[in-house]
Amino acid sequence: MIRFKNGKVITFAGAGCEAEDIEVWTDKDKISFVGKPSDEQLKNTAFEREIDLDGDLLIPSFKNAHTHSAMTFLRSYADDLPLQDWLFTQVFPMEAKLTGEDVYWYSKLAILEYLTSGVSASFDMYFELDDYVRANVESGFRSVLCGAVSGERANAKVLEERYLKYNGIDPLISFRLGFHAEYTAEYGLLEDIGALAEKYKAPVSTHNSETAKEVAECIGRYGKTPTGLFEELGIYKYGGAGFHCVHLSEEDMDIFAERGVYAVSCPGSNSKLASGIAAVTDWVAKGINLGLGTDGPASNNALDMFREMFLLTSLQKLRLGDAAALPADVVLRAACSGSALAMGLNDCDSVAVGKQADLTVIGLKAPNMQPIHNLAKNLVYSGSKQNVRMTVCAGKILYEDGKFFIGEDEKRIYARVGECFEALKAR
Amino acid sequence: MIRFKNGKVITFAGAGCEAEDIEVWTDKDKISFVGKPSDEQLKNTAFEREIDLDGDLLIPSFKNAHTHSAMTFLRSYADDLPLQDWLFTQVFPMEAKLTGEDVYWYSKLAILEYLTSGVSASFDMYFELDDYVRANVESGFRSVLCGAVSGERANAKVLEERYLKYNGIDPLISFRLGFHAEYTAEYGLLEDIGALAEKYKAPVSTHNSETAKEVAECIGRYGKTPTGLFEELGIYKYGGAGFHCVHLSEEDMDIFAERGVYAVSCPGSNSKLASGIAAVTDWVAKGINLGLGTDGPASNNALDMFREMFLLTSLQKLRLGDAAALPADVVLRAACSGSALAMGLNDCDSVAVGKQADLTVIGLKAPNMQPIHNLAKNLVYSGSKQNVRMTVCAGKILYEDGKFFIGEDEKRIYARVGECFEALKAR
Repeated sequence: MIRFKNGKVITFAGAGCEAEDIEVWTDKDKISFVGKPSDEQLKNTAFEREIDLDGDLLIPSFKNAHTHSAMTFLRSYADDLPLQDWLFTQVFPMEAKLTGEDVYWYSKLAILEYLTSGVSASFDMYFELDDYVRANVESGFRSVLCGAVSGERANAKVLEERYLKYNGIDPLISFRLGFHAEYTAEYGLLEDIGALAEKYKAPVSTHNSETAKEVAECIGRYGKTPTGLFEELGIYKYGGAGFHCVHLSEEDMDIFAERGVYAVSCPGSNSKLASGIAAVTDWVAKGINLGLGTDGPASNNALDMFREMFLLTSLQKLRLGDAAALPADVVLRAACSGSALAMGLNDCDSVAVGKQADLTVIGLKAPNMQPIHNLAKNLVYSGSKQNVRMTVCAGKILYEDGKFFIGEDEKRIYARVGECFEALKAR
Repeated sequence: MIRFKNGKVITFAGAGCEAEDIEVWTDKDKISFVGKPSDEQLKNTAFEREIDLDGDLLIPSFKNAHTHSAMTFLRSYADDLPLQDWLFTQVFPMEAKLTGEDVYWYSKLAILEYLTSGVSASFDMYFELDDYVRANVESGFRSVLCGAVSGERANAKVLEERYLKYNGIDPLISFRLGFHAEYTAEYGLLEDIGALAEKYKAPVSTHNSETAKEVAECIGRYGKTPTGLFEELGIYKYGGAGFHCVHLSEEDMDIFAERGVYAVSCPGSNSKLASGIAAVTDWVAKGINLGLGTDGPASNNALDMFREMFLLTSLQKLRLGDAAALPADVVLRAACSGSALAMGLNDCDSVAVGKQADLTVIGLKAPNMQPIHNLAKNLVYSGSKQNVRMTVCAGKILYEDGKFFIGEDEKRIYARVGECFEALKAR
């Protein structure tokens, strides 16, 4: 058991966002105690380690609700290009040459970066899943794989096989039905994914309305928005997630609200790729569940939830000309709790007994965290990765005081990433 | 002398932004050597310290070209409010109660934060200047004070007195003619500031066209934009700087270009306070000099040049719907070099012999800096304060590996800041 004492805790177990002066104990992968222990309780408990938070802050860790982790290899490789050039002349040709071993190392690099940002889990959409899973499980990092099929109807079978294979493969891994996007899927595939949703009564997650072009072309093809089409085919019948959602119509939002679909905003990617500003305050007003993601490191290019939190709210303020738009507590809850729920990680959304011990410790004795008037505002408006003192996943400390504990030397990962990229270019 | 060896250097001494495998030596406050030393040179030089950069990157430090450092005390105190409420019900009443001692401690807190972000100098507009200067000089931090007078004509005299008093008071301190803004200055004061510009053939810096309301009201009063009015009064005759510049007209931009006035963008503040997105790509196209600033920590709320750099370019991409807008090298040059020139720090803008040794070392053995395809893009798109290994000002290492060397324990600063704020609330 680990004891976190002498700190402040934002639990997100209730409606508020207040920091409490309480303790948190973990037992193996779970939280076993939250509160003020009695002398009796303390006397009867043996801890492996007692961590003196010394006034620092413990929160449910951040969860990155949309990413393509292995795309680290293309970071800074082809930025400052128009979107279509970037995708077709740079990204796709390079991706076509990726091996499983490549994905393994590039994913490990992303895991290091998540940990430095206080992230304990990712909702990842990519390929070479065996190697991706191996990278996560070896590192002790949690990941929810999002189905990424595209193309023809037959690929629905592939999706179902993966759904059955990867759910249950490891306690840190789960798999959600999903596909790349409407614009890369034949109609038959979409139909069959709707049938899979019904067969497993399962949520479905996908890129949705990232660009105006995507929406216009879908309307051209089907006379409907992507969300309208998914609704018609039963794809969102049991919920799920839409990634980006920059260009949702009012009717789309109503479907999201009714079906309990999570809208996952990716403001860093949406700004860097000039996709637009999502109407996030409208989502919240309609009661749509809100998640937050970085998107992949080729489009963002950081995997930094602090930057995403600041962007999430400041872009709403800009969009509406209203400095009061999307307050900090809503943003922090989305990053810690909403994103977990978007991924189906219902036991990773808060600090409460029986929940998974997915925790982040934020150091407050740092210039950008002082003075302390309001901790949620400090985190969202001036917080930085520099303040992450510790990242804990399933009760294991994977990152502490700048050091990684993922069973692999980080310098070896940097070296292997460089070697893999040289080999890829030569292929 | 200090020797920085085995690293990469972006000098900004020429037009490019390439990293070179060269050494940098410093002697007292200046750079004494840049290049590849001969064995002879090495044999004949005694170093106090040899710093093995081990492949890491040395750049001219960041300069924060617009800030109100002491406003750290209001960080997270009153965010998520409409701008007018924030200013009139929160900021102004609290500021009215500030003492010199308060400004001293709040400024020291800001200096700590600048150092964690690789910033070696600030262009600061505030009051209680003796205490502000003391905080900077004691810390070894460089600051350019910007005149901040407002109100009646008589205050031009105050400005002139300060100009004569603070220039030359310490090698780390200089003072530039300036005033708060058109909307807080009587016409007579603006006239007299124009006369001061002429008398000293000196540049003048001020808030300029931050909000649409400000510009509309100025046109209402004078039939001219703020920039048009300043031009008429000779205020910009010898250059200077405009802070924010969110709402410049074409004619305003032409004046900036012609007079060599620096446009200092503050994208974090402009988004958080919902002021709008400046037309920065238009400035660059017109040949306007570009600087970058955080604005004060009550409006931003971080003093983080990495976040500003990402915002500077990504907001242009969003504004234009063009992912190719304002490339990374332009942004990095503005943060390191353009901002220095905007402050009149002409000897702090690049890594070259005879220049001030104002330097930042960026650690590249970090997940968000790998792989290394393009260092400028890494810094701008995925860089973070976490990557700042060292900040050097006037040849002195003020921050290294998370530790401060400013002659004061940082925990004492945090404690004094808290105490000062409690006392201020009680006044």
